[in-house]
Parts: sequence; C-alpha cells; structure tokens
Amino acid sequence: MIKDKLCDNDLIYLSRAFRLARKGRFTTMPNPNVGCVIVKENKVIGEGYHIRAGEDHAEIHALRIAGDSARGATVYVTLEPCSHYGRTPPCTTALINSGIKCVVISMLDPDPEIKGRGVRLLQESGILVRHSLMLSEAEHINKGFIKRIRTGMPWIKVKLAASLDGRTAMKTGESKWITSVQSRQDVQCFRAESDVILSTATTILIDNPHLNVRWSFFPKNIQLKYCREHIRQPLRVIIDSANRVLPTHRFIQNSGKVILVRLKKDNLNWPESVEQLLAPEINLVGSYQINLEALMKYLGYVRKINNVWVEAGPTLSGSLLDIGLVDELILYQSIKFLGSNAKPLCFLPNIDNLKDVKTFKLLNIKNIGPDIRLTLKP
Amino acid sequence: MIKDKLCDNDLIYLSRAFRLARKGRFTTMPNPNVGCVIVKENKVIGEGYHIRAGEDHAEIHALRIAGDSARGATVYVTLEPCSHYGRTPPCTTALINSGIKCVVISMLDPDPEIKGRGVRLLQESGILVRHSLMLSEAEHINKGFIKRIRTGMPWIKVKLAASLDGRTAMKTGESKWITSVQSRQDVQCFRAESDVILSTATTILIDNPHLNVRWSFFPKNIQLKYCREHIRQPLRVIIDSANRVLPTHRFIQNSGKVILVRLKKDNLNWPESVEQLLAPEINLVGSYQINLEALMKYLGYVRKINNVWVEAGPTLSGSLLDIGLVDELILYQSIKFLGSNAKPLCFLPNIDNLKDVKTFKLLNIKNIGPDIRLTLKP
Repeated sequence: MIKDKLCDNDLIYLSRAFRLARKGRFTTMPNPNVGCVIVKENKVIGEGYHIRAGEDHAEIHALRIAGDSARGATVYVTLEPCSHYGRTPPCTTALINSGIKCVVISMLDPDPEIKGRGVRLLQESGILVRHSLMLSEAEHINKGFIKRIRTGMPWIKVKLAASLDGRTAMKTGESKWITSVQSRQDVQCFRAESDVILSTATTILIDNPHLNVRWSFFPKNIQLKYCREHIRQPLRVIIDSANRVLPTHRFIQNSGKVILVRLKKDNLNWPESVEQLLAPEINLVGSYQINLEALMKYLGYVRKINNVWVEAGPTLSGSLLDIGLVDELILYQSIKFLGSNAKPLCFLPNIDNLKDVKTFKLLNIKNIGPDIRLTLKP
Repeated sequence: MIKDKLCDNDLIYLSRAFRLARKGRFTTMPNPNVGCVIVKENKVIGEGYHIRAGEDHAEIHALRIAGDSARGATVYVTLEPCSHYGRTPPCTTALINSGIKCVVISMLDPDPEIKGRGVRLLQESGILVRHSLMLSEAEHINKGFIKRIRTGMPWIKVKLAASLDGRTAMKTGESKWITSVQSRQDVQCFRAESDVILSTATTILIDNPHLNVRWSFFPKNIQLKYCREHIRQPLRVIIDSANRVLPTHRFIQNSGKVILVRLKKDNLNWPESVEQLLAPEINLVGSYQINLEALMKYLGYVRKINNVWVEAGPTLSGSLLDIGLVDELILYQSIKFLGSNAKPLCFLPNIDNLKDVKTFKLLNIKNIGPDIRLTLKP
C-alpha cells in the first residue's frame, strides 16, 4: 500500500469526517463507522455519517445535502466507498453519477477480497482518488469491525474494577459499590458501544445485574449525541454451564436478546428473546466443554459481532487474559484499600515467577469522578 | 490571622522565593526550607535560600548579595524572619540594620510561642510588614517541619510499590523488580528529602537493601540541583524486636547513622554509627512492646525529625495505616498483573465490611517511566 501524502485540507476535512463517523458508534454494528464530508471551493457543501446497518451509507447522506453542487466537488470519506449491492446500492455508483471530481479516502476496505475495488471503479470513471491517509485514526475508530474482517474474531474488551490494592469485593462478597457512580456511567458508554456484553452465571447469581444500556445513566454529553429513541441493547451472552440462570433474573426481564451458553437445554418458560446455545454448536472440535476461543470465533463468524464487552468476575477475566484473548483491558481503580482479606482482581493462579507476570502497555489514563480509569493493552 | 491582600509583585517574587526555598529540601533539616528575594525598583538585587542548619538563613544570603542597595528595598521571604539567637544571630536584626523599607512574608512562624514576634520587631523599627500570603505553598513546602512544630510528630510518608492487581511480590518472595528503574530513581529523591528512612528487620532480611541515598541514581535534573558533595544520608531507623539485624547487613556498611529499635541490646561488634534503642526508652508508658505511635513521637520530640519515609513490607505499612499514622502514601504501580498467588500490598486484616475500607484522596498522579505514581492522602 502506497500512502498518498497528507495535505492541510486532507487533515481538516478527514478529521471532520472522523468526528462524524464516531457519531455512529452506538448504532452502525455490524457495519463500520463511516463519516463523509463534501467540499467545494473550500466550503463544506454536504456531510453525513452511517447511522444504522441497512440504511444509507455516509456518502449518500452527504451527497443528498450537496445536491447538484456535488458536481466538481471533492469527497472526503473515512473508509473506501462500497462497490457492491448489499442492503443498499453501491456508493461508488452514486459518487460517479453525482459528477464528483475527486475522492479522498482514509482507509481502503479491510477485506482483502474487496479492497481497492471501489477505488478502481471511481478511477475508471475519471475521478481522481487519493487514499491511505490518517490510517491510525481509521484503525482506531473501527477496531472491532476491522479485527473481525481480518481474523473472524471480535475485538474483546474486558472491564475490571478494583481498589488500589487490587480487590474487587469483600470476603463476604459485598461489592456495592467499589467504584463511583461516575465510573458506572462511564461503563454505560462502553456497553452502548458494544455488540455483546459477555458475562457468567456466577456474576448473575451474585449481583443480579441489569446488563443493559440505560439512557438515563449516560453522562450529559452522551445524552446529547445519542437520543433515547435510538437506544439499541447489546446481545447478552452468558456462560451458564450448570443452567443456573433463571427466567426470573433481572437481565432476562429487560429488553434485548440473550444467549445462554450451556451444556444442555432446560425446559423452563423462557421469553422469546432468550436462546439456549449448546457448547457443541460453537465448538468446531465438537467438545462438550465451553471453549472460550471457540465462543469468540462463533460470535465473530456466525453472529458478525465486532465488539465484545466482558463484565464478569475474576475467573472469566483471568481465563481470557491467561489464554491471550483480550485486546483491551479497561481497569477502574477506586482510591481505596479493601484490605488483604478481600477478593482478588483476577484469578491468575498459573503465575508463580516474575518472568510469567502479565505486562501491559498503558494506552490511556483518565480521572473518572473520584476514580481512575486505565486503558491497557496486554 | 488576617491575611494581607496578594498583589502581582507578591505573586512574582514570593513564587521566586518558594522556588529558591525548595533548593534546600535535601539539606536544611531539622530546619525549614526558606527562600528570600530582595527587590528594588522592580529589580531583584539579592536572593538566597537556607542551605544547612547552623549556617546562614535565607535572608542573610540575600542581604549579602544586595549589600548597601538593600536600603529602601523590599524583602520577600517565605517564612517569618527569626528574632532569636540560635546557632546564628537573628535575621530581624540584620534586616533592620540593612535599611530595608518593607518586608513581605508568606507564613508566620508555626510555633505559637514565637509567631508574630519577628513581625513586631520589624514594625517597631518602622519597617512596613505584610504577611500571611500564599499560605498553601508555605504549608506545602515545609509539611514535616510545620507538623512537628505544631504536634511534635513528624510527617509520615509511606512508600508502596505494587502491580495493578495489588501485589508486591511473588509467592516465593521474588520481587526484584516489580517497578521500573525510573521509579527506583524517583524513590531516591524521596529518600534524599527525608530525615529518617523507617524499615523493619523483615525487609532487611528479605531484601538486604542499601537504604541510602545514592547520587548516581538521581535523575539528571536532580543531580544538577544537588551536588554530590552535599549528599546527606538520612537516619535509618529499623524496627528489630528479635535482634535479627546483623553488622554484616548491607545498609550497616553504608555511611550514615542507624537506630535499631529493639527489646534488648546485643553485644555484637557494631560500628559507631549504630545505636541500639530500647522500647522503654521511647515509650512514655514504659511498655516493653514497640509502640509505633510512641516511636514517631520520640523521633519528633527527641530527635527533631521532620520527615519520615517508610519503606517496609505489608505488615508495617498496614499497621501504620490501620492506626492512622500515615500523612501521605506514595504508591508506585507497575502496569502488570502478578496474579492471585502473589503477595498482597498491605496486611489490613481488620477490614471485613465495605464501610471499614480505607478511602484516600488522590492528590497527584504521574507517569514515572512505564509506571504510575499516585500520591494519596488517607
């Protein structure tokens, strides 16, 4: 891939397109976030972003606003325009028909089967195309989508919350609340950006959580961007090998779909939103154990899940870390000591020597109310 | 205390005086850090800071530079000038004799016996005095000195180093090194600013540490400010109730004085720098137990110790926290997980309910190399 040179206008208008793209982060899945800005004589004459799969792509929104003025204009778009009929007609056709003179693309399609096809079609129609600009922004904004297209696996973020001495709950199990209300609001945003919330029956039995997205819990700035009517509930996937989850648990009552990953089905009176998925259905090797890697592959390949948000106890979080499935760790630290009797952050019983410890790269650190939020890369 | 109003010049020159004062932080003990700036017609004509107890005070250094020009000038000084003969003659006399017109003081003497006496003497000689300006800076720069003068107790800082999951060592005791070389350099600065390094025989037996200040370990910016010849070794105080420390331990060999706090003396061949201090000598109640509060009082009242730096294991750190003796906690976090078999940060076995957890105020957070340093107030 030869990167084109980034000029001032590219930086200005692609950055604007990225800001637009991010507005779709709660709703586009399984599609990527895409933003588009149309510029003529240094004036923005149209812009838009992809809002929901099955609806118009970013380019179409922007072209509609630009109207006839699009003739001779330049289009800035964060991802290569599609060239195939999916649930909507190809954007390349719309761009060609509009009389656009030039298209500046950040990232080419991550799918090697399709990559560059949109560029070729545009070029064959005499449109000037420049691409592969601001690639780190493009990678960042669609981490889940890109990973799934490239590897079949979703992007896996694990949420942990602990005290400064690395404890998540008292010996008694008491844990409401270690972190602040602001941290719990922040978690709502991560849930809203995810396609799946993954948890375990143990967490359900201990905490009986809602595991949903509650608009009223969003911080004000998110409420302004994401209106209440557009709320989409992530799929809840619960590992429940001993059939301990019951129809009466709180998260089952909430709207949104649920998958219970089990070893055998039960005949309780489940609402339609609940599906019992058996281990052999996800395991290529046909094992009757619940295999975490197989589950993630199943979610990526079969269910087209881009982003998995793990909110579970120390056992699942520890296992995911141990087998190297975690892409990002979000650790909320409350400025407290719970003491040496309290429960540990992660069960990582296989580490006995300093050479085996898990080392992370600190990507970000932020104050969230009275707590600290660390973003870590294993 | 009525605070005078802070004007622009006060802010400029007192800030400069505070920066000067800080230069003495490795050497003035048991005296406070003091800086002084002399200004005439908006030009600095003299400045200085207190370097070492028994030597000239800040005002004297500044007056010497100003010379005869001091007549009619304004003096900015971070602490009320002394009015008594100590190891040096009173600064008030020098200021009066110099023909100074005006004195601007940040903080009055924290000793209620002396407080305001310097101001009165200056005023009686016709010098205009303003005071009680930028008090939070003044409190901050001499926390240890001020606490000792007010309460008899030293300022107690506890250093902790742990992984993100709150572990300090592997199950095997292996702990070299959890944190980075940059964090260990940073610790050198804290040691150098302290009058006492407090530790325990257990730490000596496990780690055989140097427990000294090594100039070559200072970060470059500190080396520039604190020349090698001025290095002063803090007093090492080791709690050693079972006489486990031996003359062969590494820190005994290093230069600097040592107090071993014991229940009975031994007759080993100790160097002159080592003193065996028995529990009854520090305990007002005459108990034969080593009482931490009594030890701190002894260090403050008898030894005039302003700043104690605690570098010990989870037992001493936990006890100090438990009985509420800690003024500041410095926590180095390495971006690692040591796992659930590893050793805990603090033994705090008395916490069983969330209502009993230790909550801190986060005063500061800083990246130190790859680690994070948190400054916490219990």
